[in-house]
Amino acid sequence: MKDATKLDTQAIDPISDKELGLTHDLWRACNYLAAGMIYLKDNPLLQIPLSKEHIKKRLLGHWGASPGLSFMYVHMNRLINKYDLNAIFLAGPGHGAPGVIAPVYLEGTYSEIYPDVGQDIEGMTHLFKRFSFPGGIGSHCTPELPGSIHEGGELGYSISHAFGAAFDNPDLIVTVAVGDGEAETGPLATSWHSSKYINPIRDGAVLPILHLNGYKINNPTLLSRIPNEELGALFNGYGWKPIFVEGDDPVHMHQKMAEAMESCILDIREIQQNARNAEKVSRARWPMIVLRTPKGWTCPEKINGHKTQGSWRAHQVPLKNVRDNPENLATLTSWLKSYEPQTLFDEDGKLVAKLQALLPKGQRRMSANPHANGGLVKKNLRLPNFTDYACVVDQPGTSFAFNTKPLGAMLRDVMVKNNNNFRVFGPDETTSNKLDDIYEVSKKLWLCEYKPEDEDGGHLSTDGRVLEMLSEHTLEGWFEGYVLTGRHGFFATYEAFVHVIDSMFNQHAKWLAIAESLSWRAPIASINLLITSTVWRQDHNGFTHQDPGFLDLVVNKSPSVTRIYLPPDVNCLLSVADHCLKSQNDINVIVCDKQSHMQYLDTQSAIKHCTKGLGIWPWASNDEGQEPDVVIVGCGDIPTKEALAATALLRETFDDLKIRFINVVDLYRLAPEYAHPHGLSDADFDSLFTVDKPVIFNFHGYPWLIHRLAYRRANHNNLHVRGYIERGNINTPLELAIENRIDRFSIAIDVIDRVEKIKVRGAHAKQAFRDRQLECCQYAHEHGVDMPEIEEWVWPYGNK
Amino acid sequence: MKDATKLDTQAIDPISDKELGLTHDLWRACNYLAAGMIYLKDNPLLQIPLSKEHIKKRLLGHWGASPGLSFMYVHMNRLINKYDLNAIFLAGPGHGAPGVIAPVYLEGTYSEIYPDVGQDIEGMTHLFKRFSFPGGIGSHCTPELPGSIHEGGELGYSISHAFGAAFDNPDLIVTVAVGDGEAETGPLATSWHSSKYINPIRDGAVLPILHLNGYKINNPTLLSRIPNEELGALFNGYGWKPIFVEGDDPVHMHQKMAEAMESCILDIREIQQNARNAEKVSRARWPMIVLRTPKGWTCPEKINGHKTQGSWRAHQVPLKNVRDNPENLATLTSWLKSYEPQTLFDEDGKLVAKLQALLPKGQRRMSANPHANGGLVKKNLRLPNFTDYACVVDQPGTSFAFNTKPLGAMLRDVMVKNNNNFRVFGPDETTSNKLDDIYEVSKKLWLCEYKPEDEDGGHLSTDGRVLEMLSEHTLEGWFEGYVLTGRHGFFATYEAFVHVIDSMFNQHAKWLAIAESLSWRAPIASINLLITSTVWRQDHNGFTHQDPGFLDLVVNKSPSVTRIYLPPDVNCLLSVADHCLKSQNDINVIVCDKQSHMQYLDTQSAIKHCTKGLGIWPWASNDEGQEPDVVIVGCGDIPTKEALAATALLRETFDDLKIRFINVVDLYRLAPEYAHPHGLSDADFDSLFTVDKPVIFNFHGYPWLIHRLAYRRANHNNLHVRGYIERGNINTPLELAIENRIDRFSIAIDVIDRVEKIKVRGAHAKQAFRDRQLECCQYAHEHGVDMPEIEEWVWPYGNK
Repeated sequence: MKDATKLDTQAIDPISDKELGLTHDLWRACNYLAAGMIYLKDNPLLQIPLSKEHIKKRLLGHWGASPGLSFMYVHMNRLINKYDLNAIFLAGPGHGAPGVIAPVYLEGTYSEIYPDVGQDIEGMTHLFKRFSFPGGIGSHCTPELPGSIHEGGELGYSISHAFGAAFDNPDLIVTVAVGDGEAETGPLATSWHSSKYINPIRDGAVLPILHLNGYKINNPTLLSRIPNEELGALFNGYGWKPIFVEGDDPVHMHQKMAEAMESCILDIREIQQNARNAEKVSRARWPMIVLRTPKGWTCPEKINGHKTQGSWRAHQVPLKNVRDNPENLATLTSWLKSYEPQTLFDEDGKLVAKLQALLPKGQRRMSANPHANGGLVKKNLRLPNFTDYACVVDQPGTSFAFNTKPLGAMLRDVMVKNNNNFRVFGPDETTSNKLDDIYEVSKKLWLCEYKPEDEDGGHLSTDGRVLEMLSEHTLEGWFEGYVLTGRHGFFATYEAFVHVIDSMFNQHAKWLAIAESLSWRAPIASINLLITSTVWRQDHNGFTHQDPGFLDLVVNKSPSVTRIYLPPDVNCLLSVADHCLKSQNDINVIVCDKQSHMQYLDTQSAIKHCTKGLGIWPWASNDEGQEPDVVIVGCGDIPTKEALAATALLRETFDDLKIRFINVVDLYRLAPEYAHPHGLSDADFDSLFTVDKPVIFNFHGYPWLIHRLAYRRANHNNLHVRGYIERGNINTPLELAIENRIDRFSIAIDVIDRVEKIKVRGAHAKQAFRDRQLECCQYAHEHGVDMPEIEEWVWPYGNK
Repeated sequence: MKDATKLDTQAIDPISDKELGLTHDLWRACNYLAAGMIYLKDNPLLQIPLSKEHIKKRLLGHWGASPGLSFMYVHMNRLINKYDLNAIFLAGPGHGAPGVIAPVYLEGTYSEIYPDVGQDIEGMTHLFKRFSFPGGIGSHCTPELPGSIHEGGELGYSISHAFGAAFDNPDLIVTVAVGDGEAETGPLATSWHSSKYINPIRDGAVLPILHLNGYKINNPTLLSRIPNEELGALFNGYGWKPIFVEGDDPVHMHQKMAEAMESCILDIREIQQNARNAEKVSRARWPMIVLRTPKGWTCPEKINGHKTQGSWRAHQVPLKNVRDNPENLATLTSWLKSYEPQTLFDEDGKLVAKLQALLPKGQRRMSANPHANGGLVKKNLRLPNFTDYACVVDQPGTSFAFNTKPLGAMLRDVMVKNNNNFRVFGPDETTSNKLDDIYEVSKKLWLCEYKPEDEDGGHLSTDGRVLEMLSEHTLEGWFEGYVLTGRHGFFATYEAFVHVIDSMFNQHAKWLAIAESLSWRAPIASINLLITSTVWRQDHNGFTHQDPGFLDLVVNKSPSVTRIYLPPDVNCLLSVADHCLKSQNDINVIVCDKQSHMQYLDTQSAIKHCTKGLGIWPWASNDEGQEPDVVIVGCGDIPTKEALAATALLRETFDDLKIRFINVVDLYRLAPEYAHPHGLSDADFDSLFTVDKPVIFNFHGYPWLIHRLAYRRANHNNLHVRGYIERGNINTPLELAIENRIDRFSIAIDVIDRVEKIKVRGAHAKQAFRDRQLECCQYAHEHGVDMPEIEEWVWPYGNK
């Protein structure tokens, strides 16, 4: 293998001492500001001797990664100017935020958005004080930081976010700093393979800078303590071309970094131009940088007798107890003065003109690049009329269809109408999830080796916009990066394994909740998550594949950004999907199984029903506008069918039983009005669910979630919920339902048990239902499938 | 770099044609059984012509990986016999279970445990029919499969499980098949670094076999479609020595595999012996195998005109619609006959004697190795007396201590007393979480490069038993593998980021729930998870670090294996930890913050309180055995302190208000008796919480969880819960509490609002409390810290 670690600088002009000197000065200014943010609340330019009163009481922030981050930032700025690059910057170690906030402030963007943090003494005082201060700004690259699309509060997603940003942005260069701590996480470790998904003609480029600063909170990092030869092999193996930049002497390092970064930029341009000129796509070996610098670079070498620069001791606040220890105060003073702030800022606190000249201007500033405020460049999707994909439903509950199949056709046409603006994500399951009509217009992107058999149903292509990789982490990261930079997408995944991205969901929900409170951040497209291959049809895959608990996680996050839909059939799914694709700043979770299921609503009924979010199905009810004896509720495809079958069983058995049948699509309708924007008023809720009649609620997920949403409702004491209660092994669908008591017979028995007027005379029917359950299970154990009359059962009352 | 991909066979005896022939025959027998499991429910040896009636109605299972898994298994058996190895086998692609069940059945273990599946025609019929059949066994390597410690239902954890099994088992070789699909996941991608944590003197070895069978469900795999040169670099970069075995001709492949595996075993032995003889530990470059075979190897090349063997079409059931299509039935017949079953089994269905002779015997069978039924080799921990680490508490609520610090001392002594049987896991946070007393006796294992500065507080050592890596996935996987093979451990991690392993928690809980129903699986040690750096002290790290929602996930899993404890202080934490370390087959989640917190209970009180799980704190109550006006509950360290402070405020303000103060340690006490083994009876619950008095419950987590547990209790309508409601940014601790209304003033206001007798006359006090909140926040924004009188507040009523 060719040794790609050697820097090829033939094509690069030598960098003058003057330019490097200025770059170093700019970096010094960043470092000064970063240290100032951590320590000072006043006297920001040390214009009077530093004293206790100028120091924050509580010292917070992460110094360790900050100088390295600024180092990358100022060097990227140099190249933005030189080549007029369109670039953004992601800081994987977002807890090194001072190293990013500093150059963003110097570029002026910060002051444009937050006028109280102007480019003067008063503004610098505010900047310092508000950093990591109650009521101020966070110590990560939070949504409040202009230019950030990646907070880095939780580690692991920087590379996948960066690639999401680069897809379909052919002109963009996404610089991404990866911490060597973050590099140990699973999501990050596999996301290096993302380069196998970059089409150099239509996509932009990602320039990763792996920052080996050597330490985490208290430990050395793995990648910083293996030989370079091994590290080089690792990245060659991942498919990259690593360039090493190592050292601690700033002058030397500026020279090396300038050359390395310029070499990368030229290499990226060459790869892109070759591909674009030849109109030939192939997988490229993209350049990346391995930057090895001391942790906490430029802080004192030793503090209180311990090695600090270049040690884990520099991770957060290297020098503590400054207010009360005069020696430490003196150390801080000399550390801060080592940056010679008076040579960097004028008396009013403004960056000196010769350094101002180094900063990119306008939207070329990475902090002001509209791609990093994706809503600004977002184009709404052109959507087909979703009713064109509708399933014909003549009589409710009498026909069957694959629920997700027509959605695949709709997504296909969304893809056609929104070239460069829409992607579909799935971990190897687009076909399995029956969305494969998409492939008619856009195949799976594939840039690795092709084989002849791929022609036969492989659906692979070098210019597909369906992205499949067996890493939910990477897909979710790409998707987030894609919407954060103003585009749209759709992600379908297996219900049980969506838990793999629980933490990513949490973090994105938190990002959105903050972002939507910032008037300058334009709204972005929603994350649309189709959760399919659901628990009730994992009867054959077994217990590991049965987990509908993602929703329990979703409801903990801010109500302003979370939505949950459980469409019961094709037309409801289409209506919901259409709504979700138009929405913004939300995370839409759609739960719908992929198999053949009963169909209930024609298009118009589905639109009405989904718009209301829940409602009585009059054709399944016989309370005819009166107060019913019982309310039966279905929520989710299979629970709805079983609840409906229970309704039929009961109506056959008790001709005086008045049943109201309700279906719930929009789960948050159950929440109180004050708790979620979709919450139903108590009056509306009571008029649907009554205030005193038994409510038997057949739910798709864990039953307690319904109680959690509805416990304040008047009729809560009569609310009886069935759902998945963690009972399953290898079953048939009906047997699995019986095990968890969501089947028709269990629901019918529940009703008999709870409706006073049939309780006694229903004893015989109850026994008959129990016998039927046994019979069904016996049949399943004998034949391996459910009884045809159960599988093919349809709603027997024809009224529409 | 030395090309390590060349096989060094110098030391290996040539394998005779006869031996290879027999090995091939044994493999054929496995393949025949695997195919039989997928298709047949009768006529298992084709003793009469195959007809529709013999075929299962629903064809399930994964053929694709099965032949490859059996291939590895029989080759490992050969070496077990030759070198008397102590080995177990993990199948990452557990959905290829037929390929593992087959050799396990042939070894006889299956029949020993399940006598109805004997080694005869009837037994084989049962084996075939029950596979992936309702009421039967799963299509993964589920707990029901002897020899399995890794189900592989969810992908990503095979390597980390394997390493967990190898730690402190110097004699054991853990063979682990890694699917190339699984290899794309994040958790798997970083777990290759696990070899950096193997001490060749005291640990066993892991032999990974990366199985490039080329396809996932519908896609090629990334690693199978990059050049071998790149793949070799990747694994060299990860620190391994890969050996490639590639092809499709069985004879050739048996020869290559036999040599490659023998070479690996000899290499492993050499590494171990060198280290053990020299008593010198260094990081080794361990051997691994890259096995490239066609997917679905040995099934028909083409089916219905489509390439099947060597294609994604062989992933699950390669040949469908067999019952109703005579052509397909004929294809199946000839496929099955291609294995010549009559040469492999006698007329009674017993494996022929010459093949029997190839099988390891007794506990050398990988399916009968006691390490794979870890409870059999489990030794209970020798525990110190936890009261030795107690914190002196003279008066409740008047002193402060770091809650986790004494636990660190206790864990240190657990470590001392249980050499080779106990490990501590943490993602770079053992010191940060204040458990660093452990390092006095066992440091962090570190086998990569050492630097001089590591001597100064680095706590690194080549023989430490504290494992730290910034991958919660890898740590949890190691921990699971360690307990599944009969050892014990403790894992401390940051609360917000425990969500990273949500899915692993789910899967392990499911494993335990099934395993404990199997009488032959001996109980294993519990997973002990300390969740610390909790939400209420993430005021300074901000919103991304605030998420107490892991508990909402835990409560969905089987009540027989889940436990949740929220000890409020040092002595309760010690008591809980002692209990957890003695428990088995559970997942114990302990929530306790690491910072300095108020102390309440002396040792004896703590033991009593934790044994009850919840209880009235009489010293904080003034209802004196009578019915109170209000019940105030604290659950979790900080919520308890704030609830207590509210109690004091109220008692100062209203001298006729009768308050009962309850603390909850064992969260499941709130659940109904029928819902969880720790659930309190309604009578006991009512006597504590009353049936009609307002209950103000100050909870550590999201408030709805308490409603979810208690919604069936008589007094639920009066239950008013406060908890984290997703409001936080950069705050002080008190300000964060105020934002989420768990602070003392909010709780006091809640009480005034809900207790009739003080509602009107409390108006002035309410206003005063609101003013205090404002004042506190203003102070925080000005000074960056909480008011000292708030921080240092102590319980003012001295009565113990």
